Amino acid sequence: MSLLVVGSVALDSVETPFGARDNALGGSATYFSAAASLLTEVGVVGVIGDDFPLEQLSFLRDRKVRLDGLEKVPGKTFRWKGKYGFDLNSAQTLDTQLNVFERFDPKLDAWARAADRIFLGNIDPELQLRVLDQVQKPKLVAADTMNFWISGARKKLLELLGRVDILLVNDGEARQLSGESNVLKAAHAIQQMGPKAVVIKRGEYGALMVRGHEAFHAPAFPLADVLDPTGAGDTFAGGFLGLLDRLNNHDLPALRQAVVMGATLASFTVEQFSMDRLRGLSMRDAMARFGQFKALTHFDELGEV
Amino acid sequence: MSLLVVGSVALDSVETPFGARDNALGGSATYFSAAASLLTEVGVVGVIGDDFPLEQLSFLRDRKVRLDGLEKVPGKTFRWKGKYGFDLNSAQTLDTQLNVFERFDPKLDAWARAADRIFLGNIDPELQLRVLDQVQKPKLVAADTMNFWISGARKKLLELLGRVDILLVNDGEARQLSGESNVLKAAHAIQQMGPKAVVIKRGEYGALMVRGHEAFHAPAFPLADVLDPTGAGDTFAGGFLGLLDRLNNHDLPALRQAVVMGATLASFTVEQFSMDRLRGLSMRDAMARFGQFKALTHFDELGEV
Repeated sequence: MSLLVVGSVALDSVETPFGARDNALGGSATYFSAAASLLTEVGVVGVIGDDFPLEQLSFLRDRKVRLDGLEKVPGKTFRWKGKYGFDLNSAQTLDTQLNVFERFDPKLDAWARAADRIFLGNIDPELQLRVLDQVQKPKLVAADTMNFWISGARKKLLELLGRVDILLVNDGEARQLSGESNVLKAAHAIQQMGPKAVVIKRGEYGALMVRGHEAFHAPAFPLADVLDPTGAGDTFAGGFLGLLDRLNNHDLPALRQAVVMGATLASFTVEQFSMDRLRGLSMRDAMARFGQFKALTHFDELGEV
Repeated sequence: MSLLVVGSVALDSVETPFGARDNALGGSATYFSAAASLLTEVGVVGVIGDDFPLEQLSFLRDRKVRLDGLEKVPGKTFRWKGKYGFDLNSAQTLDTQLNVFERFDPKLDAWARAADRIFLGNIDPELQLRVLDQVQKPKLVAADTMNFWISGARKKLLELLGRVDILLVNDGEARQLSGESNVLKAAHAIQQMGPKAVVIKRGEYGALMVRGHEAFHAPAFPLADVLDPTGAGDTFAGGFLGLLDRLNNHDLPALRQAVVMGATLASFTVEQFSMDRLRGLSMRDAMARFGQFKALTHFDELGEV
């Protein structure tokens, strides 16, 4: 099995009520591959500048992440600067510098073109489409997007959605994309645009997956200390697609397990800044917490009442 | 088994983006008993004015709710007027008229004093304490409260909490009571005040129960059409305590089922204005939706991955 991700590899400067970090490792493809590589073989397509501290990716190499598709070009790496208040569910973006991402034109090598599953991280739908144009016959295509593209590149985004099996978005994005304030109606409207399944990520409130008329919900793991929610959504996507690729299956039971794996790995990301918790995470820790989700959500059927 | 509720029986005027009702049946004890009476024998302690349309309670009599403890006195019934925007999670209170509730002094008859389980709806902690002073030896005492008492009657509320087994509050109330912004820390802080278990109701995001170091989460049932969230919290409490009373058990498996029953019955309340949906609700409908919560939350353990 093999899983390709296209997205950003970035340097983030983040401030939360619990601390701050400057130029820490970030980016959608980075969080995604850190999570998914615990479960399957992952390749990254992306671009970095010549200022990028490559040694920071050594933990991904240790997890056998294929970084051949990570182009290094002259210029500065993509940078994001954001701030969270006590409501850790939404970041205030202070600065975005596309830098080398501005002229990024993804080129897939033979391994990438043959990948079984694809995750199109949150980048310009035009670039997401260019990646799809190069892949051969993936078994599953999933994508993320954001408000910027929903309002600014709607036509291309709709073209993309016609070619996507699963869309992962947060609830605000689902509402904006569909024009529906109710999340269930929003999910059903998005299904009309192409994706067979929609996963709506709701931060500390968990995630809701809708496929046809089936719904599945996983809570966020209750944590006493959340330091930095940056990357939780991409970590979720990495756990979700990583497990589907490992199971080589997209039936409803597999999708349910994948949502829980996404929630499991995301719960580690937010415990520390940047990738500090994900970096040393073992499969044993991940599986133990996956099991704790059972205790968190399991109840017995009612017999005779 | 027997379950006593003390709380308001009210006339609500409610406006949501989907419609409006004037002087419709409302009140914490009303929603609670409408829900709990599907499951067990319920008695109400409360007060109404001589303007109250008693025929509106006939569906409760049909469900064998004991209304002997509902005092009728000269004056006007308690009235609440509120408005919801598209975010149906929080109401804006436009007017509260305590009316006959101002001089309410709960008096329990022999049946009420002997009740197995007690729910102290959201009223002045002083009155909640007066009810507790009259009961004999309940197996379980649960209570609700709100921002008004947390800030205005904190001392009496803390005295009450020392005598309560389970506190049911929304997340804002849990934060205000505990001074902790993190809900898990808030729940643990509240446990230090007396209650062995805390149920944090989070509107459309479900409910989290914390008992000792065990946590259990039930989502809200995903509904395409929510017309009026008024009474959802009290309906939840009615389903929760109604099932515990019926099962005559408060162990962790029973508490988990009770949270799901609370979420189940609350999901019906919000489908219509006032008590319109609860009024005709059958146990068969309720059990069918309880079963749907299984599909909504169940996932298989991971085998060899």
